[in-house]
Amino acid sequence: MDKEERFVKQITPKSEDFSRWYLEIIRKTEMADYAPMKGIMVIRPYGYAIWENIQRLLDNRIKEAGHVNAYFPLFIPESFLQKEMEHLEGFAPEVAWVTQGGQEQLEERLAVRPTSEAIIGSMYAKWIQSYRDLPVLINQWANIVRWEKVTRPFLRTTEFLWQEGHTAHETEEEAQAETIRVLSMYKEFVETELAIPVIEGRKSPRQRFPGAKETYAIEALMSDGKALQMGTSHNLGQHFSKVFDIRFEDREQKQQYAWQTSWGVSTRLIGALVMAHGDDSGLRIPPQVAPIQAVIIPISLGNWKESVLPVALGLENELLQAGLRVKIDAREEFTPGWKFSEWEMRGVPLRLEVGPKDVKAGRAVLVRRDTSKKEFAALTGLKEQVRKTLQEVQSSLFDQALKFQRENTRRVADYAEFKEVIESKRGFVVAWWCGDEACEDRIKEETMTTIRVIPLKLEAKESPGACITCGKKGRELAYFARAY
Amino acid sequence: MDKEERFVKQITPKSEDFSRWYLEIIRKTEMADYAPMKGIMVIRPYGYAIWENIQRLLDNRIKEAGHVNAYFPLFIPESFLQKEMEHLEGFAPEVAWVTQGGQEQLEERLAVRPTSEAIIGSMYAKWIQSYRDLPVLINQWANIVRWEKVTRPFLRTTEFLWQEGHTAHETEEEAQAETIRVLSMYKEFVETELAIPVIEGRKSPRQRFPGAKETYAIEALMSDGKALQMGTSHNLGQHFSKVFDIRFEDREQKQQYAWQTSWGVSTRLIGALVMAHGDDSGLRIPPQVAPIQAVIIPISLGNWKESVLPVALGLENELLQAGLRVKIDAREEFTPGWKFSEWEMRGVPLRLEVGPKDVKAGRAVLVRRDTSKKEFAALTGLKEQVRKTLQEVQSSLFDQALKFQRENTRRVADYAEFKEVIESKRGFVVAWWCGDEACEDRIKEETMTTIRVIPLKLEAKESPGACITCGKKGRELAYFARAY
Repeated sequence: MDKEERFVKQITPKSEDFSRWYLEIIRKTEMADYAPMKGIMVIRPYGYAIWENIQRLLDNRIKEAGHVNAYFPLFIPESFLQKEMEHLEGFAPEVAWVTQGGQEQLEERLAVRPTSEAIIGSMYAKWIQSYRDLPVLINQWANIVRWEKVTRPFLRTTEFLWQEGHTAHETEEEAQAETIRVLSMYKEFVETELAIPVIEGRKSPRQRFPGAKETYAIEALMSDGKALQMGTSHNLGQHFSKVFDIRFEDREQKQQYAWQTSWGVSTRLIGALVMAHGDDSGLRIPPQVAPIQAVIIPISLGNWKESVLPVALGLENELLQAGLRVKIDAREEFTPGWKFSEWEMRGVPLRLEVGPKDVKAGRAVLVRRDTSKKEFAALTGLKEQVRKTLQEVQSSLFDQALKFQRENTRRVADYAEFKEVIESKRGFVVAWWCGDEACEDRIKEETMTTIRVIPLKLEAKESPGACITCGKKGRELAYFARAY
Repeated sequence: MDKEERFVKQITPKSEDFSRWYLEIIRKTEMADYAPMKGIMVIRPYGYAIWENIQRLLDNRIKEAGHVNAYFPLFIPESFLQKEMEHLEGFAPEVAWVTQGGQEQLEERLAVRPTSEAIIGSMYAKWIQSYRDLPVLINQWANIVRWEKVTRPFLRTTEFLWQEGHTAHETEEEAQAETIRVLSMYKEFVETELAIPVIEGRKSPRQRFPGAKETYAIEALMSDGKALQMGTSHNLGQHFSKVFDIRFEDREQKQQYAWQTSWGVSTRLIGALVMAHGDDSGLRIPPQVAPIQAVIIPISLGNWKESVLPVALGLENELLQAGLRVKIDAREEFTPGWKFSEWEMRGVPLRLEVGPKDVKAGRAVLVRRDTSKKEFAALTGLKEQVRKTLQEVQSSLFDQALKFQRENTRRVADYAEFKEVIESKRGFVVAWWCGDEACEDRIKEETMTTIRVIPLKLEAKESPGACITCGKKGRELAYFARAY
């Protein structure tokens, strides 16, 4: 057994224990670590660099769609949350409360924001007077605290990072259009940059955001067949604007309540990326969000420091100049084989090897993380080859995930088959639902399965079948799955 | 009195009431607003866009100097703060405490981070084992809470945003070099991008960060003659590494404690920018950090929508393409004069007017915010002219501030003159200090003046004079000032 094998063997195979594999990947790649408090994690530089790429790429889209960023307070007075009981009851079990400031006991408890509708609503009431002030299209990047009982790094932690958009509009139609526009933006972003295909759709009323009129989400399949909610977009109607008195004078000089939306994605996307693309050797990070897109490994043979190293350093410099995120690993205390596994585990999309023979031949060896395919490439014009290969890796990761999603999305004929598929294969199960919450609850209880989304677009129009549970006429064709 | 005049008159003149002028500017320009809780502000899009520019320009420098970003928890268990009593005592009066999570009363209170040395130290103890793991050069962008009694938007608020760097090194020399390197980076950043000249130097022992071996700071003069601390860089020695047990095996296989630094700047810089450059007409934002670098105002005369507007829109597009932050104000409900004052108040560095005559002559009118100087410029090649003018505005703001700083930095002969200058003129007073805290305290008590910094570099070497207070031999040539 050589060093490389031994090294990789340290990771529990995915097939053996997915959950342990996930936790080991997160720790060993130094994406995150446990803080000394229950359920709280530290995002280490390697994980945070992925978040920075996500932020940059999504922030560009949010701004191109006309939004601006702002920053609202971390603390929300309890009385503000109490103004909206449905909202408060939805979040109360998860709120961390500040009761003391310095030496003084506070008269009113302050919630550490579990979401910001209440505090933002109270400010919008001050800022919005006329239809001329609308639309208000504001986003914030912030930390959020929810006191979770069961936690898992990136997927569910007491504190996490996210963006939350909060908009106010003149008409119901505009708010609905914004809700869907953002949902589509999320889908395009996640599919393009994270290479994860998603299903977009409505949530069932039971799974709506507390206070929302309608909640939409994008959902993806992880490689263990469980679903993960990747982002949500809520049409809030006039619910919060009535509670917080966000009124404006309309074009006919009449007072109206504003129509609102809110929407967000979080550091959970990093967990999605691990579970959607990772394999037994470790991470496979899509090049678009990879902290390191290509690692250069000089092969330490003979007088490599004189012959190979200068060429490798020149290559690094050339690729950095071309705007690629590249790193050379010239450490002397590790063998090339050890480094191969290390960077494979860390999911770097492309490895460039340069050894004495390669230098003589004026070439490098390119090894793709997704396929392990090796090829020679001339040093001259290498940056174009690298760029092209990175694009191929990005597409190939998306294609693999899409293939997996399609193979694991199944229409079922009856409830027996539903249960059988969920038990043996997981994935998305597509079935008609009558719209009755009793059926939804029964399915959840008996199969630990929930309605993930009711798709916005169906691939083919079809007339409603029977509800999978009760047999009554189906109203919604729903995607069911076990989920994180 | 025309509309323009009336509009500007809404701001209290600086000379009449600086503090009121400041608060009015902040509110009227929509940089920030008060949240419904004491001492807490909302950073509105116009203010936040300045922060985003600050973040981008400083983050580039932080990364170029070899640091990486990460994210550490908001909550710090009380026992962690208690490990370091000096640190705890320094911050305890300002800590907001979480005592309840969901429905459960916490066994141990959690501090909402007032700074992150304790939590980061505890993680570094896990991550650092060998000299090969060093240096650790990590920065984070985060929100901070300090329960302040007297608050003022951007300058001192219960919650604020900042970056905090935390590094660990193999040797004392390296840590000291890092401390100074960051201080110089801050100075260069603030002078180049915010156009505010600063004095860099050491703090007196009394004003050290709790737990630090030495604290360095950059200090600037605001236009009312009071000083503002703009950023700090601390050499922490081995103090925290001993408390949190951050040990490593050195090159001789011996166990050593790591040498640490920490450093930060905050949203306070936005307040500095207002107070250093603003005038009676409002803000004057340095082009490098201005959300809008140039505003284009089409003059609404005659058939302006057919003749002027298309030219103005074309100009906007051309300047946006050139990477400039430009906005056209084509609102019909306001007159050009009203718009001139509005954008002057908001501190946009450059105004471009395009009227019917200008279109015919193939030109635009350029008006600089800093000098109110008008000039014609040909539409052909205008982007180069705009770029050049913005650079001139940037330099001119710095030059004005530097001139003010120099004119308001005074050497005094004795304590009587010291008091007289501070009372009548404020500014920096440069005087010898014996190093005795009794003298420092007496000056503070009698003149409300503190030692801002003991400069790193003196312009001319001179032999120590007498301490301004006690007359004993001076040990430090210090910059004194009243400060925010």
